[in-house]
Amino acid sequence: METVQRTIFFVSDGTGITAEALGHSLLSQFEGMTLREVRMPFIDTPEKIDACVQRIAEARAADGVRPVVVTTLVQREMAQRLRASDALVLDFFDSFIAPLEGEFGRSASHSVGRARGGASSKDYQARVAAIDFSVTHDDGVSQHGLELADIILVGVSRSGKTPTSLYLALQFGLKAANYPLIPEDFERNALPPALLPHKAKLHGLSINPERLSRIREQRRPGSKYAALANCRAEVEAAEAMMRAHGIPWLDASSKSIEEIAATLVQTLSRIAIP
Amino acid sequence: METVQRTIFFVSDGTGITAEALGHSLLSQFEGMTLREVRMPFIDTPEKIDACVQRIAEARAADGVRPVVVTTLVQREMAQRLRASDALVLDFFDSFIAPLEGEFGRSASHSVGRARGGASSKDYQARVAAIDFSVTHDDGVSQHGLELADIILVGVSRSGKTPTSLYLALQFGLKAANYPLIPEDFERNALPPALLPHKAKLHGLSINPERLSRIREQRRPGSKYAALANCRAEVEAAEAMMRAHGIPWLDASSKSIEEIAATLVQTLSRIAIP
Repeated sequence: METVQRTIFFVSDGTGITAEALGHSLLSQFEGMTLREVRMPFIDTPEKIDACVQRIAEARAADGVRPVVVTTLVQREMAQRLRASDALVLDFFDSFIAPLEGEFGRSASHSVGRARGGASSKDYQARVAAIDFSVTHDDGVSQHGLELADIILVGVSRSGKTPTSLYLALQFGLKAANYPLIPEDFERNALPPALLPHKAKLHGLSINPERLSRIREQRRPGSKYAALANCRAEVEAAEAMMRAHGIPWLDASSKSIEEIAATLVQTLSRIAIP
Repeated sequence: METVQRTIFFVSDGTGITAEALGHSLLSQFEGMTLREVRMPFIDTPEKIDACVQRIAEARAADGVRPVVVTTLVQREMAQRLRASDALVLDFFDSFIAPLEGEFGRSASHSVGRARGGASSKDYQARVAAIDFSVTHDDGVSQHGLELADIILVGVSRSGKTPTSLYLALQFGLKAANYPLIPEDFERNALPPALLPHKAKLHGLSINPERLSRIREQRRPGSKYAALANCRAEVEAAEAMMRAHGIPWLDASSKSIEEIAATLVQTLSRIAIP
């Protein structure tokens, strides 16, 4: 199959993160494409939209094929200028706001969106508090205040606890602590004492030992810590301990940070909603 | 204006984070609505889609008006079952995949998307490394390895450095350190010595003193730390110091974490791309 060279623009009057996420998820459906991505956030004045239209025209001329423009521009006259470009313009608001207006029987405000509040909103304060909590309760550093955690992740070193905790805090506003299971715990055959009062909040992450060994090798090449036999023994002991204590766990080996976090949130809400 | 009560479903075969982000950004265009949100991630089997269709029918009956369903389901037959519901179904793939197929002259794979790689991908490893870096270089805790930072945020205590650093790491894979500017620095009228070799990487966050005082009051009520006069003096001194050293800074007062991070990334790419 012939390789297609295309430039993809993500154009937004906000951060562009939504446009980009959606664009990636659409484009991941097409394989064997060579794509050049151009992120254009904060396009919120006529001057900026003109500069944007100009860059699209330049890409059209350079590539010899028209670019794809993924846009979440809220203001209609800005979006119209964009749509006059020689490009395939995928306009999320144009496609979905009209049906929603009909459904709700009222007009959209068409003001530049703030899907997420600024520093004064409650949502912001809760997320900042969750992030602070997760940073200070990373890797078992502080046991003080563990009773305030929404969730405590456990697992062997490098099983993905830190990124998952922080994503839970940033995306979902959850106070997520994490605590390592280490060889000393396996020798004693007991959970870390600090965790015993909080067993109901524990969720485990496990990982394929081969993958764990590769990850640890990057950190400490040639060490016992990274050796495959040691990784196998640690993972096996950790899973046995989680099983013995009735701690639910999931295998993080082939999952992205987002997938692990969303799976945990789903589990938590299943517990919370009777 | 009469209040409309609606149930909104976010249905996805993945984490549902994209569906939700886009849904929120669409719905933020309509004010005065009472919305009940139901997140349905990982809908990837016929049984799960049937359960989902059932819940939509129940909401239809309970609300007396049809629900809105925002979906990013990739598999067409799953999406078709959903569209048979008595609901307004906003289907992102249906609306955008067909035009892309025409444009690219090839068919979409319609396999369940992975917009972001799993634990084995390079993207994942880079993000985990960035997150580890940002956690260990939070709040000036470690000065070791600061030369590896992509960016070092500076600002007074509670100006938003920690959440911004972690978001930069998680979302953009950037090694983002942060370092506080404290009263001792202002008395000496000099940047913290650890930062001097890295001046080109410094970016400042500033904040409205009234807002800062309110945030600090929550942390240490009635303290000198939180007093408005002290917050004013610290913010003024920090801005004067950043100005004197040519450190670019932005006012984080009315911005969300995502907006601050996206603005910084745009600044960095402007520097990197000549």
